[in-house]
Amino acid sequence: MTSKPDSTPFAALLARCAPEWKAYCQHAFVRGLADGTLPAGAFRHYLRQDYLFLVHFARAWGLAVYKSRNLAELRQGLDSLKAIVDLEMGLHVDYCALWGIAQAELETLPEARETMAYTRYVLDAGHRGDLLDLHVALAPCLVGYADIARWIEAQPFTVRGSANPYEAWIAMYASEAFQAAAQAERDWLNARLAGQTQERLDGLAATFRDATRLEIDFWQMGLDGA
Amino acid sequence: MTSKPDSTPFAALLARCAPEWKAYCQHAFVRGLADGTLPAGAFRHYLRQDYLFLVHFARAWGLAVYKSRNLAELRQGLDSLKAIVDLEMGLHVDYCALWGIAQAELETLPEARETMAYTRYVLDAGHRGDLLDLHVALAPCLVGYADIARWIEAQPFTVRGSANPYEAWIAMYASEAFQAAAQAERDWLNARLAGQTQERLDGLAATFRDATRLEIDFWQMGLDGA
Amino acid sequence: MTSKPDSTPFAALLARCAPEWKAYCQHAFVRGLADGTLPAGAFRHYLRQDYLFLVHFARAWGLAVYKSRNLAELRQGLDSLKAIVDLEMGLHVDYCALWGIAQAELETLPEARETMAYTRYVLDAGHRGDLLDLHVALAPCLVGYADIARWIEAQPFTVRGSANPYEAWIAMYASEAFQAAAQAERDWLNARLAGQTQERLDGLAATFRDATRLEIDFWQMGLDGA
Amino acid sequence: MTSKPDSTPFAALLARCAPEWKAYCQHAFVRGLADGTLPAGAFRHYLRQDYLFLVHFARAWGLAVYKSRNLAELRQGLDSLKAIVDLEMGLHVDYCALWGIAQAELETLPEARETMAYTRYVLDAGHRGDLLDLHVALAPCLVGYADIARWIEAQPFTVRGSANPYEAWIAMYASEAFQAAAQAERDWLNARLAGQTQERLDGLAATFRDATRLEIDFWQMGLDGA
Repeated sequence: MTSKPDSTPFAALLARCAPEWKAYCQHAFVRGLADGTLPAGAFRHYLRQDYLFLVHFARAWGLAVYKSRNLAELRQGLDSLKAIVDLEMGLHVDYCALWGIAQAELETLPEARETMAYTRYVLDAGHRGDLLDLHVALAPCLVGYADIARWIEAQPFTVRGSANPYEAWIAMYASEAFQAAAQAERDWLNARLAGQTQERLDGLAATFRDATRLEIDFWQMGLDGA
Repeated sequence: MTSKPDSTPFAALLARCAPEWKAYCQHAFVRGLADGTLPAGAFRHYLRQDYLFLVHFARAWGLAVYKSRNLAELRQGLDSLKAIVDLEMGLHVDYCALWGIAQAELETLPEARETMAYTRYVLDAGHRGDLLDLHVALAPCLVGYADIARWIEAQPFTVRGSANPYEAWIAMYASEAFQAAAQAERDWLNARLAGQTQERLDGLAATFRDATRLEIDFWQMGLDGA
Repeated sequence: MTSKPDSTPFAALLARCAPEWKAYCQHAFVRGLADGTLPAGAFRHYLRQDYLFLVHFARAWGLAVYKSRNLAELRQGLDSLKAIVDLEMGLHVDYCALWGIAQAELETLPEARETMAYTRYVLDAGHRGDLLDLHVALAPCLVGYADIARWIEAQPFTVRGSANPYEAWIAMYASEAFQAAAQAERDWLNARLAGQTQERLDGLAATFRDATRLEIDFWQMGLDGA
Repeated sequence: MTSKPDSTPFAALLARCAPEWKAYCQHAFVRGLADGTLPAGAFRHYLRQDYLFLVHFARAWGLAVYKSRNLAELRQGLDSLKAIVDLEMGLHVDYCALWGIAQAELETLPEARETMAYTRYVLDAGHRGDLLDLHVALAPCLVGYADIARWIEAQPFTVRGSANPYEAWIAMYASEAFQAAAQAERDWLNARLAGQTQERLDGLAATFRDATRLEIDFWQMGLDGA
């Protein structure tokens, strides 16, 4: 699949959820982004709900700050929070404007069931478990989007540049900055997953699988909303 | 609608979510229970997921115990917890057996997205807010099933007795014991909702509406799973 | 100290907090219970605050129910909750009455700082971490009182029977039922602590040490309140 | 007392806790800061524990981010978090260095019981209740330090300038920036407290009173640690 064959604990976690991970990373929605054939209505539906997703994603990083046991964890949570609220949300609003979605619409739109399902699942996984559980529940988003961008880049049918209306989306997640953030998360997860008991790894794999399934539903929601 | 016209704060909350409440209480799944025409496969799918729902429902009442500010609230949460874990779960397992679903199957079945969506939404509403927010998120289940049973009883097309394979289901929620529990919950909510600010009531109505929508999805999941 | 020399993971945890554990289990308050010389005023102050402690202890077990990952954990939390709310609280109220403390007084008394410190520390440890963190924070209470009763029983200066006004207190915690509950908790902890990473064990030891220090303060509060 | 007589809901809350508020704002520790007679050892003990306090204070604002219901609340929480972690912690470390306390010491020092009591109380109040409960539990710190600085400024015995070793501390909390932040918090609280039910206000007053008592203990810890 999209992640290089390696022997890290996170790679092992991914390998346990290989069918779900592939269904997520190579979803029809992703293929439509890659070759530019995704209906604009599907993308717009996705963009709208992704705004609501970001709000709850920010709440999840607030929870990560709360769950921190030391300053390093606290700063990690805060950095993610700043990236989302101070940077990504603004970019998202600007990007939505380019697609004809006004900020006023974003602030009043109803939350789709798929958005509720994924975001609340992540928040509950974080509350029920500890900081590692929360990160594992968040990983399909952060690590997944990085993997997806690399997978798109590697496909022969992918169209890049102005010929693809989704070029900006692809470029953002393929960017060095985003890829580095995803790698930092993989590194953090590898350090934490190392040496965990089998029972603990089983629980984390279940969380990762569930979260990945809910990401698949999020893509499907986009397609169905067209 | 199913709830008697009254002027209580909870009735006012219901009135603000009237379309969703009606769509939930009079859902095709409910009509199929009433006249006995619901496909057995739909009911079995519902029964299986309802078992997983009960587990998270119990977790929600554990959260209610944690959120208590006094002994009365603490005992209320504990009583609900005992009703679910010590009573309902056993009845549910027995009832599932009558429909050919073994306990071993219940303990390993994958959680449907609709189950995750509803249960995690309730848990997050409870964590984010206070005990009242949690109760309002739980109300569509407890109060709703009572309203649904009364609505079924009042319909001309309803079939009762051994001619309806869903008689036991209807009888349980129409029972005096269940109706009394639902009324106790309405009374508790009325006492707490009285005098709240408009902003607070707006937030609670949004929670109640979302939870009701997720209950509708839960019925639909049953139908689609047939 | 009071726990038998053994090689279980929980014994290793205890060994890392040996000075604090000894200071807690052999506190002057405990010695005063053993030989019957504890001032009645100190005991009454302790009894009053222990009632408030029980309320938050029950909240902690509600949190444990919420944090459960399966039915076994859920039932364990519920059983503890029932033991506290349905049994211990009543016994405590009755026992307070024998010492001249009316129930009405219990329900309105101000919470001492030491009670707030210990109970809120436990609750935060549980929220920040997972179910194991919560149990480790609760262990000084459940396991500690069992160890304390056994230590009292083993001291030459201990006075038993009607000659000691604290006989009932000693007898309760020395009882087979309480000792069995404590052993069940040790067993559960041993199963969970086995195979944990050193970093994880360090964090749990810090929690256990802090909670034990706060138990020491609770005894001291009793003495100072005389 | 230090807050101007006014008729806002927050002033009414303060008035219900007037004795505790006065004991906190005019504590011997505060008087020692004002006239410069506070023993350096007391101040150093306070400074050390205040560092640990800041870590948990940051966690509390992370919890506030999680508890947000909209972007405005989310940004408010994030702004407080950034002020603490990106600004105050650095200032605190620098200031500690001036008093001969090395950063390495700050990172390994044991947490005093008074620090645990106050910080964990705030976190539990936030978890148990909603965002307003959390803010009310935090208010004695933010609003209190602003009131204290103004009270110090108004006392005839106060020594300002280089003649007072605590001039920098006083100046920071008397600064326009800090006073404005405290006023913004008062405004936010006033907007939220308006129109609440009496029962709700009773609960909030109890939280505010408890938190103020724990702030008093924090000052006393400084004095006792000299």
